[in-house]
Amino acid sequence: MPKTSRYLQGDNKKRKENELTTSFLSQILKEIKPLDERAMAKARARQDMLTKPHGSLGRLEELSIKMAGITGKEIPRIEQKAIVTMAGDHGVIAEGVSAYPQEVTAQMVYNFLRGGAGINVLARHIGARVVVIDMGVAANLESHPSLVSKKIAFGTHNMAKGPAMSREQALRAIVSGIEVINEEVAKGLDIVGVGDMGIGNTTASSAICATITGEPVATVTGKGTGISDEQLASKVKVIETALALNKPDPKDAIDVLSKVGGFEIGGIAGAILGAAAQRIPVVIDGFIVGAAALIAAGLCPKVTDYLIAAHVSVEAGHKTVFDYLELNPLFNLGMRLGEGTGAALAISIIEAAAKALAEMATFADAGVSEKLD
Amino acid sequence: MPKTSRYLQGDNKKRKENELTTSFLSQILKEIKPLDERAMAKARARQDMLTKPHGSLGRLEELSIKMAGITGKEIPRIEQKAIVTMAGDHGVIAEGVSAYPQEVTAQMVYNFLRGGAGINVLARHIGARVVVIDMGVAANLESHPSLVSKKIAFGTHNMAKGPAMSREQALRAIVSGIEVINEEVAKGLDIVGVGDMGIGNTTASSAICATITGEPVATVTGKGTGISDEQLASKVKVIETALALNKPDPKDAIDVLSKVGGFEIGGIAGAILGAAAQRIPVVIDGFIVGAAALIAAGLCPKVTDYLIAAHVSVEAGHKTVFDYLELNPLFNLGMRLGEGTGAALAISIIEAAAKALAEMATFADAGVSEKLD
Repeated sequence: MPKTSRYLQGDNKKRKENELTTSFLSQILKEIKPLDERAMAKARARQDMLTKPHGSLGRLEELSIKMAGITGKEIPRIEQKAIVTMAGDHGVIAEGVSAYPQEVTAQMVYNFLRGGAGINVLARHIGARVVVIDMGVAANLESHPSLVSKKIAFGTHNMAKGPAMSREQALRAIVSGIEVINEEVAKGLDIVGVGDMGIGNTTASSAICATITGEPVATVTGKGTGISDEQLASKVKVIETALALNKPDPKDAIDVLSKVGGFEIGGIAGAILGAAAQRIPVVIDGFIVGAAALIAAGLCPKVTDYLIAAHVSVEAGHKTVFDYLELNPLFNLGMRLGEGTGAALAISIIEAAAKALAEMATFADAGVSEKLD
Repeated sequence: MPKTSRYLQGDNKKRKENELTTSFLSQILKEIKPLDERAMAKARARQDMLTKPHGSLGRLEELSIKMAGITGKEIPRIEQKAIVTMAGDHGVIAEGVSAYPQEVTAQMVYNFLRGGAGINVLARHIGARVVVIDMGVAANLESHPSLVSKKIAFGTHNMAKGPAMSREQALRAIVSGIEVINEEVAKGLDIVGVGDMGIGNTTASSAICATITGEPVATVTGKGTGISDEQLASKVKVIETALALNKPDPKDAIDVLSKVGGFEIGGIAGAILGAAAQRIPVVIDGFIVGAAALIAAGLCPKVTDYLIAAHVSVEAGHKTVFDYLELNPLFNLGMRLGEGTGAALAISIIEAAAKALAEMATFADAGVSEKLD
């Protein structure tokens, strides 16, 4: 077979794969439905019968009602919990935007697999499994039962020199995230927390955040793992350069992801969409997951109904993300570790909220007098 | 024996009892020592060796270090957890200050004992036992294995007509709270959350808060379980009347407690002091517990080092309490139920913080590269 013909065959195969990927994603987006109003009304009515002054459990009551709307169950139960932590590397670290060397991404993946990282401790605390995904770590990772390989490439390209990835890679990253969730749902899943690991990924996230929300780069860029003021000023310039060079289209989330994103950010966006399509509540962690949520919401605005924002990170752009997505995080503990650590703490609160709805006695059951007229 | 002589004998006995109570309390106050700086320094040093950017677990790191200082252990562990919920009734409800009838205090005690209240659900969620104390419920409560009776009287007097209780009763309430903690420590106790139940007790708490902090009554008085705007205005007037009539001395915490307090508030103040004396961290719940903390701090300002503030309640005066005690609550979930519900959620976060310190791998253990210079 002459060489040109083989190349053409390869091109056809690639085109067909792309078409399949795109149609799979469109299908998933169609499966994301509005919240179940009937289940929410029933949960709300039950809250008002429980032995406490009306509304006195505050946001725990709201959470239980939201959970009812997401799951379609008037008394939602949380038993199977997972934290999905997606890892990827970023070519932009060549610009000196991070306080840590690139090798830390792979080293931390091994730390996750051995159970020694912050997310392992917090996930054990709340009784959740940790699933680690190699979305694009710049190292050949040894296989491990808890490691799912969806590697798109060995890290993204340097966005300061050109697009971080191809449009096709961006689509594959998102679809891989959906596949990860489908595998977890098959194992049993009542709630999922999503987290990230990737040296350089606050740079990608700030670029995404600035593009989609329209806020200035300087407003949404922070010190990540701990760079100096000078390094921060340089990081802002690197992002501004990357945006001027790549001109991501804020109305086209796939374009934004491909120009300035990361493989793990695409994977998280996919996990968010996949979970929403299956009516699984998604607890979003820090700033990087926030950037992924912006991508997911760019593809399907309704997806925000399925999100519960865990916490406000120290990272500068996080508040901007919440304002844009109209989400109100549960707490602010000055955390900025990522990995899903904030999501893990939040899941414990959400579980408490669901248990209060399910397990508290009603005024009638307990023979407690109701409010005076 | 002539009648007068018998009376004199009774008076002597009472005087002796009072002297014993006062000297027991003085002894406990002396046992409250400064935090262990050495353990705190060791915990801080360990935090900086763990596989995360320095400081990236934010307040979880602070909590673990505070726990080290309180317990004197450089790696504090939390296994045995208790929520101590103190119940009492308030004569001031005759003034129409509450949305619920007095009988609800006793009904809710039974609900606690059957496991159907909010605090039961949240305590089960975090693996804590609930200990319910009758400090002064206005009903003869049936005995129950989980109910500790320290009943001082069948509710306080109406503070709008005179002192809520005698000075002797105030002292006995505090000492009873200390005894409760000592009994729990004997069973095994690594952390304690304190909570309240008592129809009318936000009125007593606002009176205490206004007296001790010097803020106007209207600033520190809220809607409690849910009264109307008119009832709130009347509640403020009732408290102003009670303060004008009884003139509690803000420099004398026992005087404040006796003039406008409650038996459960005295019990909680005692529990706080007793726990601090035994180096047990105390997680303080809502506004009523905050008022009890003001009493405890009035007796021993150092006690605040042993307190961890769980949450900001919706109740108006809670922020004033934190400002005065220089405490920074962990979260604000719009809760106003009391019972120890906020403390229970906070204990889970504190436990997570302690586990992160104890269980995370160090950079050296995990072979993870440290920050670039």
